[in-house]
Amino acid sequence: MPGGGMMFNRIVVQEEGKRILDEFEVRTVKYQKGYYVADSLETIATICSKSIKAGAKIFNLICVEDVMIDEKDKITGLVLNWTATAMAKLHVDPLAIRAKMVIDATGHETEICHIVVRKIGPKLKTKTGEVIGEKSMLADVGEKKLIENTREVYPGLMVTGMAANAVFGSPRMGAIFGGMLLSGRKAAVETLKVLQK
Amino acid sequence: MPGGGMMFNRIVVQEEGKRILDEFEVRTVKYQKGYYVADSLETIATICSKSIKAGAKIFNLICVEDVMIDEKDKITGLVLNWTATAMAKLHVDPLAIRAKMVIDATGHETEICHIVVRKIGPKLKTKTGEVIGEKSMLADVGEKKLIENTREVYPGLMVTGMAANAVFGSPRMGAIFGGMLLSGRKAAVETLKVLQK
Amino acid sequence: MPGGGMMFNRIVVQEEGKRILDEFEVRTVKYQKGYYVADSLETIATICSKSIKAGAKIFNLICVEDVMIDEKDKITGLVLNWTATAMAKLHVDPLAIRAKMVIDATGHETEICHIVVRKIGPKLKTKTGEVIGEKSMLADVGEKKLIENTREVYPGLMVTGMAANAVFGSPRMGAIFGGMLLSGRKAAVETLKVLQK
Amino acid sequence: MPGGGMMFNRIVVQEEGKRILDEFEVRTVKYQKGYYVADSLETIATICSKSIKAGAKIFNLICVEDVMIDEKDKITGLVLNWTATAMAKLHVDPLAIRAKMVIDATGHETEICHIVVRKIGPKLKTKTGEVIGEKSMLADVGEKKLIENTREVYPGLMVTGMAANAVFGSPRMGAIFGGMLLSGRKAAVETLKVLQK
Amino acid sequence: MPGGGMMFNRIVVQEEGKRILDEFEVRTVKYQKGYYVADSLETIATICSKSIKAGAKIFNLICVEDVMIDEKDKITGLVLNWTATAMAKLHVDPLAIRAKMVIDATGHETEICHIVVRKIGPKLKTKTGEVIGEKSMLADVGEKKLIENTREVYPGLMVTGMAANAVFGSPRMGAIFGGMLLSGRKAAVETLKVLQK
Amino acid sequence: MPGGGMMFNRIVVQEEGKRILDEFEVRTVKYQKGYYVADSLETIATICSKSIKAGAKIFNLICVEDVMIDEKDKITGLVLNWTATAMAKLHVDPLAIRAKMVIDATGHETEICHIVVRKIGPKLKTKTGEVIGEKSMLADVGEKKLIENTREVYPGLMVTGMAANAVFGSPRMGAIFGGMLLSGRKAAVETLKVLQK
Amino acid sequence: MPGGGMMFNRIVVQEEGKRILDEFEVRTVKYQKGYYVADSLETIATICSKSIKAGAKIFNLICVEDVMIDEKDKITGLVLNWTATAMAKLHVDPLAIRAKMVIDATGHETEICHIVVRKIGPKLKTKTGEVIGEKSMLADVGEKKLIENTREVYPGLMVTGMAANAVFGSPRMGAIFGGMLLSGRKAAVETLKVLQK
Amino acid sequence: MPGGGMMFNRIVVQEEGKRILDEFEVRTVKYQKGYYVADSLETIATICSKSIKAGAKIFNLICVEDVMIDEKDKITGLVLNWTATAMAKLHVDPLAIRAKMVIDATGHETEICHIVVRKIGPKLKTKTGEVIGEKSMLADVGEKKLIENTREVYPGLMVTGMAANAVFGSPRMGAIFGGMLLSGRKAAVETLKVLQK
Repeated sequence: MPGGGMMFNRIVVQEEGKRILDEFEVRTVKYQKGYYVADSLETIATICSKSIKAGAKIFNLICVEDVMIDEKDKITGLVLNWTATAMAKLHVDPLAIRAKMVIDATGHETEICHIVVRKIGPKLKTKTGEVIGEKSMLADVGEKKLIENTREVYPGLMVTGMAANAVFGSPRMGAIFGGMLLSGRKAAVETLKVLQK
Repeated sequence: MPGGGMMFNRIVVQEEGKRILDEFEVRTVKYQKGYYVADSLETIATICSKSIKAGAKIFNLICVEDVMIDEKDKITGLVLNWTATAMAKLHVDPLAIRAKMVIDATGHETEICHIVVRKIGPKLKTKTGEVIGEKSMLADVGEKKLIENTREVYPGLMVTGMAANAVFGSPRMGAIFGGMLLSGRKAAVETLKVLQK
Repeated sequence: MPGGGMMFNRIVVQEEGKRILDEFEVRTVKYQKGYYVADSLETIATICSKSIKAGAKIFNLICVEDVMIDEKDKITGLVLNWTATAMAKLHVDPLAIRAKMVIDATGHETEICHIVVRKIGPKLKTKTGEVIGEKSMLADVGEKKLIENTREVYPGLMVTGMAANAVFGSPRMGAIFGGMLLSGRKAAVETLKVLQK
Repeated sequence: MPGGGMMFNRIVVQEEGKRILDEFEVRTVKYQKGYYVADSLETIATICSKSIKAGAKIFNLICVEDVMIDEKDKITGLVLNWTATAMAKLHVDPLAIRAKMVIDATGHETEICHIVVRKIGPKLKTKTGEVIGEKSMLADVGEKKLIENTREVYPGLMVTGMAANAVFGSPRMGAIFGGMLLSGRKAAVETLKVLQK
Repeated sequence: MPGGGMMFNRIVVQEEGKRILDEFEVRTVKYQKGYYVADSLETIATICSKSIKAGAKIFNLICVEDVMIDEKDKITGLVLNWTATAMAKLHVDPLAIRAKMVIDATGHETEICHIVVRKIGPKLKTKTGEVIGEKSMLADVGEKKLIENTREVYPGLMVTGMAANAVFGSPRMGAIFGGMLLSGRKAAVETLKVLQK
Repeated sequence: MPGGGMMFNRIVVQEEGKRILDEFEVRTVKYQKGYYVADSLETIATICSKSIKAGAKIFNLICVEDVMIDEKDKITGLVLNWTATAMAKLHVDPLAIRAKMVIDATGHETEICHIVVRKIGPKLKTKTGEVIGEKSMLADVGEKKLIENTREVYPGLMVTGMAANAVFGSPRMGAIFGGMLLSGRKAAVETLKVLQK
Repeated sequence: MPGGGMMFNRIVVQEEGKRILDEFEVRTVKYQKGYYVADSLETIATICSKSIKAGAKIFNLICVEDVMIDEKDKITGLVLNWTATAMAKLHVDPLAIRAKMVIDATGHETEICHIVVRKIGPKLKTKTGEVIGEKSMLADVGEKKLIENTREVYPGLMVTGMAANAVFGSPRMGAIFGGMLLSGRKAAVETLKVLQK
Repeated sequence: MPGGGMMFNRIVVQEEGKRILDEFEVRTVKYQKGYYVADSLETIATICSKSIKAGAKIFNLICVEDVMIDEKDKITGLVLNWTATAMAKLHVDPLAIRAKMVIDATGHETEICHIVVRKIGPKLKTKTGEVIGEKSMLADVGEKKLIENTREVYPGLMVTGMAANAVFGSPRMGAIFGGMLLSGRKAAVETLKVLQK
């Protein structure tokens, strides 16, 4: 999101997306009926700042190397390493962290879903069990599918944002970020339900 | 074309190719019966200059990242990004542009045809539905097939030049550029027919 | 600042630094008398978010290639380019932007001061007229000098943060960020005075 | 010039620059009094096309490795090599070509002037005998100096375009290309005089 | 092992692992019931030192390019080359060395098992005959399977350490190194039996 | 061959190989019964020198990009390009050269056989029609098979040297070069027969 | 030391060097009068193992970015960072560690001495105050000078091993490691004296 | 020499150069009066082959890292290492070899002369004591100076070929290789005289 569209630092949201930005006190300017423009850096910095204050912990400079599983192959945590060791091509052992729910929000890459398929097998709740890959751009359909696709794709693994459309093979959206924000909220709400069981 | 043959800055055309160069006022010198030599830079600069004056818009330094589709998967536009962001390995969101007809003239790479197969499926109008890949060099056959292959290979997507032979699995041509010029004219004429419907 | 100290995502500030973080509503935890710990991402995201709301404009993905000068060599603006074109080694012409005051906050690199020396001459208000370069670590002296060094180092060019100590040859500070925050505030106040003249 | 300003494919020229573009039949649009906008690719393609037709020979994919001199150190030609061999870090011997006048139009790099200083000595007709290097941006002064600086900087070596300001230490111009075109014409006229002696 | 866990230079072993470290006179500190901490460099340096004194020969800076086989495709030795020639992309012929038993201890990579599959065919004693690849992290199961998997996976080829779990598709272990040490001892004992036949 | 075995500049040949070296007047020293050692550089320089004098033409710094075919897909020549353009990642059109017989002597890579499979189809005279790939090292079998495998693997394409064993899936030989020399002679003799038809 | 001489994993020591290896229980074999050969990996692993047991702490994967000084510019510690962040070109702040004596044992590079000269000034106790750089190979003189050069080269900074000869401009030694071992011992003894004051 | 002129594999020699090629039985073709053309690969392969037979030993894949000196700084040998270790950026200790005369024939790079200046000081027998660097191309003067410059440039170090002109600052020659051959012969003759003293 910080790069905006082709490095022009603005993002566009629809009516529902604007409501989430309002909640975060991110300023928007009406572009045309139903569409609003926001500063991409203000948006990401504000969401980041408020999320951390609300209790999110962000582990910067760390990447996911693998997942932890239980005896039924349910995901129970993440195997972490410094991003720098991978960039520097050093062989260093990882450490692990337990998690009640892992959320794959890695966008087009769907990195964690790919780890599951490679290490555990084609067992995702998709048509093929694998990561299907995002389809070409079809904004309206993509926005609708995104909310539907935001769900548990494997025991212990939720998908959200562009990763949700990518894993289920739905179209990519245009440069409109509203669906992303709504998808993030749905992922949070669904995860809370699971945690409260 | 600017690199000529193995960096020697000359190109060769046949009789029909020469007639197109004549139209563009690119000078040619007779090499032997039916074959003419032209300066490769004069050729490309002149065609570029006259095409822009005739109304072509060239978006320099921009590459195609994906296509836009409609609900029937017909191509309706292109998803663009700066070439520099890919070269610099930066993650920046693209922008999109509508198009009544997309023409894949990316040569051996057939970049847009490959995007269609990867993102939408093996649905090209070729034997396998995929990009078959150019065959080894067989100049005469290649030149003939090139004109035939210059056509709509997928709803909303025309192929021209070496990309046309590559997608249909026809042989590559020799260092003779006449077929390329005729293929380009055919693509233009066919596209105009579609646009005028 | 987002990398913390050796990738551990915490920063330390002294009493005066804490007061600035309080102003930004960044949470701190007392570590020992006079020293407070904050989350490095919360700090930078919050400062970024509030600064943009207060009117700062951040041009992301853009770098400074040169400065604009007037006939007396006073700096009057910046010559900008996409960072991506430099990373991709493309030769693209820059654009220029006027500025009443340019602030070099590029840290150890002191990029803009180096441009002045290379393009205009060794005319900085330092002992040698050049960028002297930061001295080895001596935290107390470094923190004190930092405030003193935060000033106009060349007509139209202010220095702040580690760039201020680097240009004047003062020692680097430890992993304590209080001086950085105070230096930023002084740079803002001094610049406002100049703009209000 | 093909990259425009920060990859936006337009260039700006003043009244005198427009007259040269008119001569080449490059189309311009009035932006404001005294300033005209042209398509950067149309400009460069048209100038390239017409120059080759007028007799210029462009050796594409070749770079200058050294100069040829006579016994009085006057430049009498160029030592050439394939650019590809340098990019591929191959050690291949060059070939040489005689020239009555060499024109350094390599822009900011002033590559040939640097070769002269490194291989023959600091004997350029500049204050120091060396390449002084372009000054920061000061458009009006830069444009004026450019014409003055377009001249023989060493026996047998003319400088033009940004290389002229770079070698003499004059300021760089803004994103306005008029001076570049006028400098090119002056270099051509001056060279013709020398050749006709 | 020298990198510890995420570059923190400590390793953890269980009760049985500690007994092997005791044998090597590597010091351990009790962390909690059944778990001991050791210095990762002390561990590896001591094991290396004592192994060489006990008769192991380590060929540093050399990598395995292929295996030697007999007419029944049993492995009878290794084809070796300098690691530096591969890193420098030089084409240099290898040399060969005979071995009564080859032990693949190349960890996650299982380099020698991969060579067997690629050069001889999918004939490993695994379910598929190929390298199945390690599963995600499940420490207890992984530790148990490791000892079981430490055996001859192909005539003349033993596997040990993480390579044993990787080739048979068992889970990776956590950051606990006890199983690794026990696996190494089992590989040694099994190999001795084969050699003594 | 110039790299010797692991950069030690000696090669070993058997009795028959020695006879070919004798013919070229390359000096050998008896190592043990049936095995002779030669200087690797003397060997390759002498063979190269005498081959050129005998009429061979070596096109240095050029690589094979594709093959030319006739209407029955028989190979009739090679499509060549500068190696430097590939190394420099430049897009430059190739040139073509006719050949009555093409000999793939590219060693382990079997570059031309791979081109045939990729561009024309799996039609080599091997079990699968594809390049099977060399097997692990088994010197005696490899040496015997090498002579047998030295033959026309596709209409118009002969294989020799390590490429012959690689394409037919026979074992690689040890560091003994005799078979290589005998294979080269057989390829020459077989090709002469074809040319004399 | 682990690379031996040109990757042959043996080292040579003289009589005095052998006595130190004896102390570490590293095995040596007499080569000729006064010279002994040892396994390079056994040597380094054993010294490393025994040094850690004797109390040395080795911080693996960490590099020295700068030094800490007091108000008289005496070195009082080191500014450390992960080696991986430098290799990955990430900008991450360092951490600092106090030290009563810093020993530069970085060999030919003399990294810490270079930091002192660059950050504090040419104030080393050498003829020029700078790092003079090792002279060409003259084994006998080099071995003698090495012991003499093993001393405090700047307040708080000792040099040892090849760094000692490099900083004072003495010749490099041959492939004989005895002097290195003796220099290490002298550095340890001299440092102990300072610490015990 | 194998790359010819701009990758065209021919070299040109004058009358005297031809006589040396005749001696080596390298075939030449008369191009015009006093100038002969030879195949560049035939030339280098034949010279290499005959030199080795005449007793030269070529250590392939090895580079010079430093020189050995005696107590009066006279060169007495070379410090060698594998080229591959430098290309792979491995730190491996070199080995040394004694030589009665070292000949720097490294062409434009004059690698050994540069080592002398950097490690021993500016004590070459040139005007400045340093490597002056070759001048621009002036073929006749260059050819004459080359023979004169072929001499001992430092005690124990001869220069020949382009390195001779580079170290003394004489002009580079054109694409004519006669002087190179004559320079090589002079270096051999001069060295023989020294060895026979």
